[in-house]
Amino acid sequence: MTINGELLIGARAVRGTSGEIRAINADSGETMEPSFGGATLEDLDAACALADAAFDTYRETSPELRATFLETIAANIMAIGDELVERAMAETGLPRGRIEGERGRTCGQLKLFAGVVRAGRYLDVRIDPAQPDRQPAPRPDLRLRNIALGPVAVFGASNFPLAFSVAGGDTASALAAGCPVVAKAHSAHPGTSELVGRAVQKAVADCGLPEGVFSLLFDSGRSIGQGLVADRRIKAAGFTGSRGGGTALMKIAQDRPEPIPVYAEMSSINPVILFPGALVAKAEATAKAFVGSLTLGAGQFCTNPGLVLGIEGDDLDTFIGTAAAALGDMPAATMLTPGIAKAYRTGVEAIGAHDAVETVARGKPGHNCQGQAGLFVTTAADFLAHHELQDEIFGAASLVVRCPDLATIADVVDHLEGQLTAAIHIVEGDYPEARKLIPHLERKVGRILVNGFGTGVEVAHAMVHGGPYPSTADGRSTSVGSLAINRFLRPVSYQDLPDDLLPDALKQANPLGIERLVDGER
Amino acid sequence: MTINGELLIGARAVRGTSGEIRAINADSGETMEPSFGGATLEDLDAACALADAAFDTYRETSPELRATFLETIAANIMAIGDELVERAMAETGLPRGRIEGERGRTCGQLKLFAGVVRAGRYLDVRIDPAQPDRQPAPRPDLRLRNIALGPVAVFGASNFPLAFSVAGGDTASALAAGCPVVAKAHSAHPGTSELVGRAVQKAVADCGLPEGVFSLLFDSGRSIGQGLVADRRIKAAGFTGSRGGGTALMKIAQDRPEPIPVYAEMSSINPVILFPGALVAKAEATAKAFVGSLTLGAGQFCTNPGLVLGIEGDDLDTFIGTAAAALGDMPAATMLTPGIAKAYRTGVEAIGAHDAVETVARGKPGHNCQGQAGLFVTTAADFLAHHELQDEIFGAASLVVRCPDLATIADVVDHLEGQLTAAIHIVEGDYPEARKLIPHLERKVGRILVNGFGTGVEVAHAMVHGGPYPSTADGRSTSVGSLAINRFLRPVSYQDLPDDLLPDALKQANPLGIERLVDGER
Repeated sequence: MTINGELLIGARAVRGTSGEIRAINADSGETMEPSFGGATLEDLDAACALADAAFDTYRETSPELRATFLETIAANIMAIGDELVERAMAETGLPRGRIEGERGRTCGQLKLFAGVVRAGRYLDVRIDPAQPDRQPAPRPDLRLRNIALGPVAVFGASNFPLAFSVAGGDTASALAAGCPVVAKAHSAHPGTSELVGRAVQKAVADCGLPEGVFSLLFDSGRSIGQGLVADRRIKAAGFTGSRGGGTALMKIAQDRPEPIPVYAEMSSINPVILFPGALVAKAEATAKAFVGSLTLGAGQFCTNPGLVLGIEGDDLDTFIGTAAAALGDMPAATMLTPGIAKAYRTGVEAIGAHDAVETVARGKPGHNCQGQAGLFVTTAADFLAHHELQDEIFGAASLVVRCPDLATIADVVDHLEGQLTAAIHIVEGDYPEARKLIPHLERKVGRILVNGFGTGVEVAHAMVHGGPYPSTADGRSTSVGSLAINRFLRPVSYQDLPDDLLPDALKQANPLGIERLVDGER
Repeated sequence: MTINGELLIGARAVRGTSGEIRAINADSGETMEPSFGGATLEDLDAACALADAAFDTYRETSPELRATFLETIAANIMAIGDELVERAMAETGLPRGRIEGERGRTCGQLKLFAGVVRAGRYLDVRIDPAQPDRQPAPRPDLRLRNIALGPVAVFGASNFPLAFSVAGGDTASALAAGCPVVAKAHSAHPGTSELVGRAVQKAVADCGLPEGVFSLLFDSGRSIGQGLVADRRIKAAGFTGSRGGGTALMKIAQDRPEPIPVYAEMSSINPVILFPGALVAKAEATAKAFVGSLTLGAGQFCTNPGLVLGIEGDDLDTFIGTAAAALGDMPAATMLTPGIAKAYRTGVEAIGAHDAVETVARGKPGHNCQGQAGLFVTTAADFLAHHELQDEIFGAASLVVRCPDLATIADVVDHLEGQLTAAIHIVEGDYPEARKLIPHLERKVGRILVNGFGTGVEVAHAMVHGGPYPSTADGRSTSVGSLAINRFLRPVSYQDLPDDLLPDALKQANPLGIERLVDGER
């Protein structure tokens, strides 16, 4: 496949004329070929018009056709072959193993949603049959199904060039729900985006779907991203990125004549809580595993463990000492973009210079595009007094908070903003105290895990990758796992419709053979 | 039971000291006894603090206890007896039959949610068991359940003094979800509110629940309602009322440091579409049924048929003529408050004076607190040119739009704002054209009904009382029916927790005996 810097607007590939975007080799900092033309507002309008025109046809495609479409996207992505892997490696600085794994995850996600579409459970079909003889008034026939919200804007994420970008989780769940997608490529990996975009565009054609089901735009500034969320034909948006970026989109969405949901995944420092028994039993092993999680992928995960809470004393010192030693050996790691590397340096310098914070270890230094890991320590009193200490530093930096006791750990948890994950490290003797802390954690996070770290997000039915604000814009949802499809659906009730006019999912004979709730019973 | 004008803050009843509220006899316009003391910001703070303190205990109550609590509220409401009916009649001007029916519906709603809580399906339990031998990495044990969002603010609605007020649908669904409720009484029926509030307060005590599960506040201005939505301990709000009121609360909720969802049900004109075959077959009968629906409860329903679309010609003229005759015989009806009666008069006068609108019938005139029904006609071209013609007039007024053909009816539907309901009147010969129009309607409404009217909202599993903005703030939800509980829930995932630390819903032995999705299968 060729990368030639074109926008994909429905079935067309056209050169954008509003400025240009260049990929930068993450490791060398050098500009890469080709240049990508930025979309104009006319391109944006064309993509949205096509998406809107495709919506009614696409949302009523059969489960089999829609599932096949998702599987075809996966096959077309694999068919790109090594060109995709190498381009993504160059644009992101991520190693081959990670990119290949992420490609597998991306295709796995598409296939998971194909299964979700075929099962039909996401339609939440409910039937309350008529009761013509009910007193004092007859009951009508009522049938409910979920329908797709409408065209969805998907913003590619810098840190997942495949799994949360053009054909990533947001796109897969929106397409599964029956929503056309207008994707905005992340400027950090435009070549990867175009390759994947062409694979989706080809799948649309392969499956004979209306061309407007998918478009891909490049944005040389911010006007295309902002315009997408503001466009009246767009009915929801998916975003993974900074808090500033996410809240800006939320504001645009709220200020529309018709506000729409923005599913923005923003910032999280993912507290790790070390219980006393676990520290006695395995401070060293936990410290090493912690450093492994912290530095994975240069720390560029939303679920990176940026905060550690433990009770001050010898065992915590052992944890800190072991972690410091392990981290001190860590080579600097290439970050996704020069901008992210710079923001990381700024964040680490600020926390290192903070009066209430002690720097206990730094990884090995590197060049300008690399991040040097950092481990910092403060006290609970200082952490509670300085709100800025819970600002996310995107990269391999973590802050250990020495707490006098478990009650103070609970206070610190209560004081935290919303988070994606919390991890507790425990042995059996810690269970009684863990049981007390869990309700505090449930209020703050979307996922609680035991004796592990939040990095490594399973694509599964029971996954929640979400959490209270500001970890996400809407804690009622997840962006990973089969439940993510719910973000792009809304229920519609049909009262007394003749069978002829009902959608297949609701017809009396159940031609789709799906699970349905009849009079409140399965 | 006594009505003495007190706030209910947890287990206490206290006199509010921030101004006073007086009920007005809807029919006579006379001020009623007693006076109700408005809550201060300290009262608001106390209620929110109690709700927050009760949350962790209440959200983990057993299904049986929580269901019994809901049933106890229903029993306590019935135990008030006729005093409640008479007070509600006096405060709202609604007739005995309607109030008794609404009381039955209110108690039925509470019992429906007791069943929902016992069934446990709303928890959406999903279990993906560990796969320790999976390659390249083991899969952890993942378990998901929904938990309650947190304390919820509920605003009483003027037009449903029981079913959408202190112990109405929002309260029932929030309590069922495990959320404490801080209710703000509607000032139009404070006595009804206090009576019902005391029934809920007593149920909290009867069931041995933490007092903060329920509080009731009166607001002599707007600061309490606004302060409730702004309070950091409140995690969602339910509101039914005007578009101005709803959007103001949405703005407050969005401007918080932690934005929260506001489920505001606002304005809807509920289009009725008369297909050609149906007009030939039954124009007169449909017109009479239409006037019955339009004037029911003085037209004070969110689902009142405020817009009729039909193809111009003799049959539509027959419909209009029959409706005009029936409406002309309608006595004026007492409206809920003098303010609502005045707003209705203003709205009807404005549409009657509109250059593009012809007044074809008015009901019989009445006194100042009454509404005189109105039927108006315009053309599709004028309707499309004058956006103000789709503004809701709360009361028994409706606008018939003469359309040249079915394609124009589709254009008018496309041009509408979001609506709660749409009704299509058809005979079998109309099915092909109805099939074409339904996708247009699905984009605009939450419920589509055939050969009926939207008034009369069944409390059922398959009901959607919701719809795209501005009919509601969030078209992804319903405020009536068992699905309403979803508004107050969010998913949490538990990874690798020992069975001892899992909530009952997720324990391996399934002690609650509820339906669970294991590895994607029931």
